Amino acid sequence: MAATFDGDVVRAGERARERFYDSRGYGRPDDGALVLAPVEAAHLLFRGDLAAVRDGRPDADGRDLDFAAFLGTAAVSEVDFFVYKDLRDRGFYLSPADGPAAEDFVVYPRGAGPWDGAVAYRVRPTSERSDVSAASLRDLATADAAGLLAVVDEESELTYLAVERPTIAGSTFHDLPAGVAGDLLADRVLVADPPAVLHERAFYGQRVADDSPLLQLSLVEAAHLAGRDALAVDGGRAALLERGRAVEGERFDRRLRVYDALRTAGVVPKTGFKFGADFRTYADVESVEALGHSDLLVRVLPPTHEFAPRDLALDVRLAGGVRKRMVYALADPEDGVEWLSVERVTP
Amino acid sequence: MAATFDGDVVRAGERARERFYDSRGYGRPDDGALVLAPVEAAHLLFRGDLAAVRDGRPDADGRDLDFAAFLGTAAVSEVDFFVYKDLRDRGFYLSPADGPAAEDFVVYPRGAGPWDGAVAYRVRPTSERSDVSAASLRDLATADAAGLLAVVDEESELTYLAVERPTIAGSTFHDLPAGVAGDLLADRVLVADPPAVLHERAFYGQRVADDSPLLQLSLVEAAHLAGRDALAVDGGRAALLERGRAVEGERFDRRLRVYDALRTAGVVPKTGFKFGADFRTYADVESVEALGHSDLLVRVLPPTHEFAPRDLALDVRLAGGVRKRMVYALADPEDGVEWLSVERVTP
Repeated sequence: MAATFDGDVVRAGERARERFYDSRGYGRPDDGALVLAPVEAAHLLFRGDLAAVRDGRPDADGRDLDFAAFLGTAAVSEVDFFVYKDLRDRGFYLSPADGPAAEDFVVYPRGAGPWDGAVAYRVRPTSERSDVSAASLRDLATADAAGLLAVVDEESELTYLAVERPTIAGSTFHDLPAGVAGDLLADRVLVADPPAVLHERAFYGQRVADDSPLLQLSLVEAAHLAGRDALAVDGGRAALLERGRAVEGERFDRRLRVYDALRTAGVVPKTGFKFGADFRTYADVESVEALGHSDLLVRVLPPTHEFAPRDLALDVRLAGGVRKRMVYALADPEDGVEWLSVERVTP
Repeated sequence: MAATFDGDVVRAGERARERFYDSRGYGRPDDGALVLAPVEAAHLLFRGDLAAVRDGRPDADGRDLDFAAFLGTAAVSEVDFFVYKDLRDRGFYLSPADGPAAEDFVVYPRGAGPWDGAVAYRVRPTSERSDVSAASLRDLATADAAGLLAVVDEESELTYLAVERPTIAGSTFHDLPAGVAGDLLADRVLVADPPAVLHERAFYGQRVADDSPLLQLSLVEAAHLAGRDALAVDGGRAALLERGRAVEGERFDRRLRVYDALRTAGVVPKTGFKFGADFRTYADVESVEALGHSDLLVRVLPPTHEFAPRDLALDVRLAGGVRKRMVYALADPEDGVEWLSVERVTP
C-alpha cells in the first residue's frame, strides 16, 4: 500500500482511506484519498499496518522509511507517539487537534470516531522533563472536553492528569468578635483571653496546650482577622504584614490572599504542612469538637508558575493517598485567585 | 521563688538550683545558684513552676513578667519554646547547645540529664515558614549525635525529621557491550538491535512495547552509556548532552552526575516520576525478570539548595507511604555528590 511523506503529512490512496479512516479512524479523507498526520503514520508503521512510507521530501532520495527511520525524521516526537499509542491501546480513536493547540489530541468516546462529532477528552502530551506553565493547565481546564495532561516519563510510561477549575464553597460563617487583644510574638500571635467563638466555632488558631486558655494564631490567620477588625495588636495589621513578609517575602501576601478567598467562600484553611501543602481545608465547620475530614489540599503559587510534571505527580499522589483533592491556587496579590484541581485518572 | 531576667539569662538562687537543676535538669549551676536560658525559664513559667520572673533589664521597671509577657520580650522565640516543651513532654531533659550552633538543643537520653555526659539527639528548631539550607542539614547529619530538624507548623505541631549521610552501595555490575548503535530522537534514543545484556541484565532502557525488539533509552541513560563507549549515536555524547540541556539546562548535568555516581556505586537508577522524584533505585539487579523492590527515592538538587520544610514533609511522607528511603543528592556538576537522607521519626 503506497504512502508518501511530503515533509508535512503522509498521503495515501483510496484503499488506505477505506482501510484506515473508514474502519479505524486514522487520518482525514481528502478527495477520496487519505491524509495522515505523522503521528498517525508512525502508529501504522509501528503496528506493521504500513510496511514503510516513501520519503518524498524535496531533498530526499525517495527511499523507504520504516518505523525507526520515520521517527528519526523528527516529523513526529516520540512523546506524541507514546501518548497516541497508549490511547489507541486503550481502545480510543483520536486525532491531532486543529487550530492553535495543534499539539493536543482530540480523543473520541469509545466506540466513536472523527465522523461522530462527540469528544471525550482533549489530551496534551508532555515529557517528564519539560515544564508545563500554569497558563497551559488553565487552557486544558477550560477546553471543550475534559482536559488531560499526558505525561510520558523516562521509561515511556504514561500518567494522565485531569485538570479542572473547581468551585470552592463551604458553609462556615460565624460572627466574629471585635478587636480582640493579641500579642505579636516572633512568628505568631498570642491571645490571652480569647472569646469562645474564635477557636471553638470559627476554628481560628490553636490552643497552646490542651489545658491552656492561651490561643495562638498563625500570622496569616492574624492578618486576616486584623483585616476584619476582629483582632488588635500593637502596630495593627501593618505590623503583622511586616512580620509575615520578613520570612516569606511576597509569598506571605499570596498566602494571605488565598486565605482570605477561602474564608470568604465559607471554607476554613488550616496548615497543610504535614501533607506538604500550604493549606488543608474544612468546608463546613459548626464547631471544632465536631470537625469533619479535611477535603482539599491547597498549594499557593504565582499565576506565572511553571510546573515540573514531577512535582504535579508528587502532589497528586500524596493527595490521593490521603483521600483529598489537590488544588492549586494561582494568586496574584493585586488580583483574584484562580483555582485549578489536578487528579490522576485512567482514561 | 525569686528569679530575675537580665536581658540575656534568668538568674535564681540556691533553692531554685536544687529544685530545677538538681532534680529536673533545668539550667546550669553557677556558684551554687542557677542560671536559666530564656527558653528554660519560659517553660517553668508556662508550667507554673515559676509564677513570674522580675524584669531586671537595664531600661525596665522591675515589674513581674508572666509567661505571655516573658514571651513578648522576644528573649525566646515561640518556635524554640514549642520544641523545648514538646521534648520535655516526651520525657527528655535538654539544654540549649553551646558554641556556634547555639540555636540547637542538646537532648539527653531518657533518664539522663546534663550531668551525665551522654547525648541522644541534637535538635534544630525551625518554623514551617522558614527555609532550611542544604548546608544546615549537612551540619545536622554530621553532628555528634543523631541530628533532628524539628519543624513547628502553623498550628504549633511538631514534626521531627532525622537527617543522615547514607552510604549508597549496590552490587549491580555487568560488562557492557561496546559501541551499540542508537538513533537520537527528540527526547530519547532508540536502539534497533540491542544486545540482551543492556536491558535484560543491566537494566538500561525500556522496551518500546512488550513484544517489540526496539529499546528506548532516556537521555541520561544514553549520555551515561556514551560516556563509557557503550553507545554510539550521530554527534556522539556531545549531541546527547546538547539535547539534554535544551530542555532542562544545567539540571540535566546534575542529574547525569548523580546517575553516574549511582551506577558507579552498583545501584540502578530508573525514573522516579510516579513518586515525584528524579530516580528510584535498585541496589542488586541480576536480571530485569527478577527485579526486587526499589529502595531509594532520589531527588537531585544543587548544593546551594534551600529547602522549604513543607517540601521536605511532602517528600518524606510520600517516601514513607511507599516504603522507600528519601535521599537528596546534592550535586555540583564540577564536583562530587553528597547524599543526605531524611526520614520522619518520633524521638
